[in-house]
Amino acid sequence: MKRVHNYYPGPAALPLEALEYAQKEFIDFQGTGMSLLETSHRSKEYEEVHDESIALIRQMLKLPDNYHVMWLQAGASMQFAMIPMNLLGGDKSADYIMTGFWSERAVKEAGILGNAREAASSAEDGYTYIPKKLDLDPNAEYVHVTSNNTIYGTQFFDFPDTGDVPLVADMSSDILWRYIDVNQFGIIYAGAHKNLGPSGATLVIMRDDILAKCKPDLPTMLKYSTHVENNSMFNTPPTFTIYIVRNVLRWIQDKGGPDAMEKMNRRKGEILYGFMDSSDGFYDCPIRKEDRSLMNVVFSLPSEELEQKFVAQGREQGFIGLGNRAPRWHCRITMYNAIGIESVEDLVGFMKDFMARNG
Amino acid sequence: MKRVHNYYPGPAALPLEALEYAQKEFIDFQGTGMSLLETSHRSKEYEEVHDESIALIRQMLKLPDNYHVMWLQAGASMQFAMIPMNLLGGDKSADYIMTGFWSERAVKEAGILGNAREAASSAEDGYTYIPKKLDLDPNAEYVHVTSNNTIYGTQFFDFPDTGDVPLVADMSSDILWRYIDVNQFGIIYAGAHKNLGPSGATLVIMRDDILAKCKPDLPTMLKYSTHVENNSMFNTPPTFTIYIVRNVLRWIQDKGGPDAMEKMNRRKGEILYGFMDSSDGFYDCPIRKEDRSLMNVVFSLPSEELEQKFVAQGREQGFIGLGNRAPRWHCRITMYNAIGIESVEDLVGFMKDFMARNG
Repeated sequence: MKRVHNYYPGPAALPLEALEYAQKEFIDFQGTGMSLLETSHRSKEYEEVHDESIALIRQMLKLPDNYHVMWLQAGASMQFAMIPMNLLGGDKSADYIMTGFWSERAVKEAGILGNAREAASSAEDGYTYIPKKLDLDPNAEYVHVTSNNTIYGTQFFDFPDTGDVPLVADMSSDILWRYIDVNQFGIIYAGAHKNLGPSGATLVIMRDDILAKCKPDLPTMLKYSTHVENNSMFNTPPTFTIYIVRNVLRWIQDKGGPDAMEKMNRRKGEILYGFMDSSDGFYDCPIRKEDRSLMNVVFSLPSEELEQKFVAQGREQGFIGLGNRAPRWHCRITMYNAIGIESVEDLVGFMKDFMARNG
Repeated sequence: MKRVHNYYPGPAALPLEALEYAQKEFIDFQGTGMSLLETSHRSKEYEEVHDESIALIRQMLKLPDNYHVMWLQAGASMQFAMIPMNLLGGDKSADYIMTGFWSERAVKEAGILGNAREAASSAEDGYTYIPKKLDLDPNAEYVHVTSNNTIYGTQFFDFPDTGDVPLVADMSSDILWRYIDVNQFGIIYAGAHKNLGPSGATLVIMRDDILAKCKPDLPTMLKYSTHVENNSMFNTPPTFTIYIVRNVLRWIQDKGGPDAMEKMNRRKGEILYGFMDSSDGFYDCPIRKEDRSLMNVVFSLPSEELEQKFVAQGREQGFIGLGNRAPRWHCRITMYNAIGIESVEDLVGFMKDFMARNG
């Protein structure tokens, strides 16, 4: 079997080691004579997996005791609603920093459930940068950011100082790309299927004082306290998804943890952006240099025809998922933790060749 | 490897063929050079899996065109809230038929969101039967039933005639145990992890006129219309879970479909209940004969000590998951579609032996 270069934006490439480990014990999990897929979530065997996945998150992000870790379901999209449902209402208001498609989805939900303000936006400039000048409301319940923008190719490398107002971050596409100091945040959430594992689980990290402010009169499944009090086992969790995430977390740990991920991710960015910047505008990245995402590299080619050709020829040569759905830059290279430096070097080889034939 | 007899109540035994198929292509899905776990939900490859899983549900339940099929997340527990959230409010009221732990959870959520009435209950008799005398409100928005009760061991074999009031059924633990005429129901929902596959996906089947009555001003993820309009792809679905469900559905089809499942499930019930009834009260099933579940067989033994011994010795001999958390009957045998007749015969052999040694 030849493994392709998988540049899908999510569900996305996973470490081969994590997959091979799962395949080996797929039908006979840890010698139990059954698959983990068919093992009760109340069994000792699954509970160990569950607790280890949470312990690894705590350990790698050095979480203080006043932060809770939850595994929920229904993706970041459900968090777009669940956060304002728990924290807004009445006169309360929240600030949103607008950086693309996913911020738009997030602020829309907050607006359905309460008062949501756009505290900054780069929309007028096609979301080509992370806005730094913020019009923050000191009385806001929270400030929301999307830490990495998968479609527009920007990323926060420094987070805004929001003073006493809690910072809430959707880190779906860059959680654990490096170590971050969690103390800056009130809530961090992330769909698993980009940097952590397959689709079907959502990581939520919440500070104790935010949890205490959540509304008490909500449906049980939509209250964070339900999941904190039951260690994310109020109802049946997505057991196999969490198991694969556990395997991916072990792999990150084995490779040297978040610091090693950062080193590798920065190197991949240097290689790819370095090459593109030397292509005389053939591979045209519209993003301000200081805000360029190391997870999703977006660009355009001299014509839409060439862009289609690039995506199609990439696929033929084993580079899958090079298209983007942004309005103007139709190409994208996604390189979460599981994409190795060699893969990016091979890709640059293809890109050089493509430019030579079409430039 | 020796495969155990897996009597867990959910996540529960899956057909070995469905697992072996998945293991074989676990890392190289259909020759694509990547795992399905890392394949975009927008890819042709995943979309085929997704559409086939829905087509198989439609086909096996002979769904008319006015019924929609959705794959959601967060289990039946989220549906306990989502249904009243969409259909109640103001003066509207819903009727709940109380048959155990899961009905209690369902009615509690409806009570948070609107007016919920208990239209019948067997609680006073320890939920040992399905109440047949119903005090139905002709103006109710819907009547809710739990079709099979995993903890109390009862099952609806005939559903009540609710006239013009839509019938809503939580079929988490017995969907597709046999063919049912969907035209009796306004909504059917089912967590996948009992009779359909692993945990992490929830099947929702909804009639068109119910969908039309759902509230428009809810958060996007909590509106059924969002998922119907986007073929359950508004956000990233739990792709691998749905793939395993697809494999299980194919297995049901290969075995002869829902009618073949019913024949097998009835035979398993005859063997097990037949033996228990001939045990002179050693294996004491408290459930009224006509309401005894073919999915979850609950019983007590002459003492709690013997019950603990039964569960422990069962485990030692390869019969896993024989405990129950009901207040009085602490043993349970769960036999969804994937449990074969031979397994139940082997189990009865163990039970005979246990009785001979301890009776």
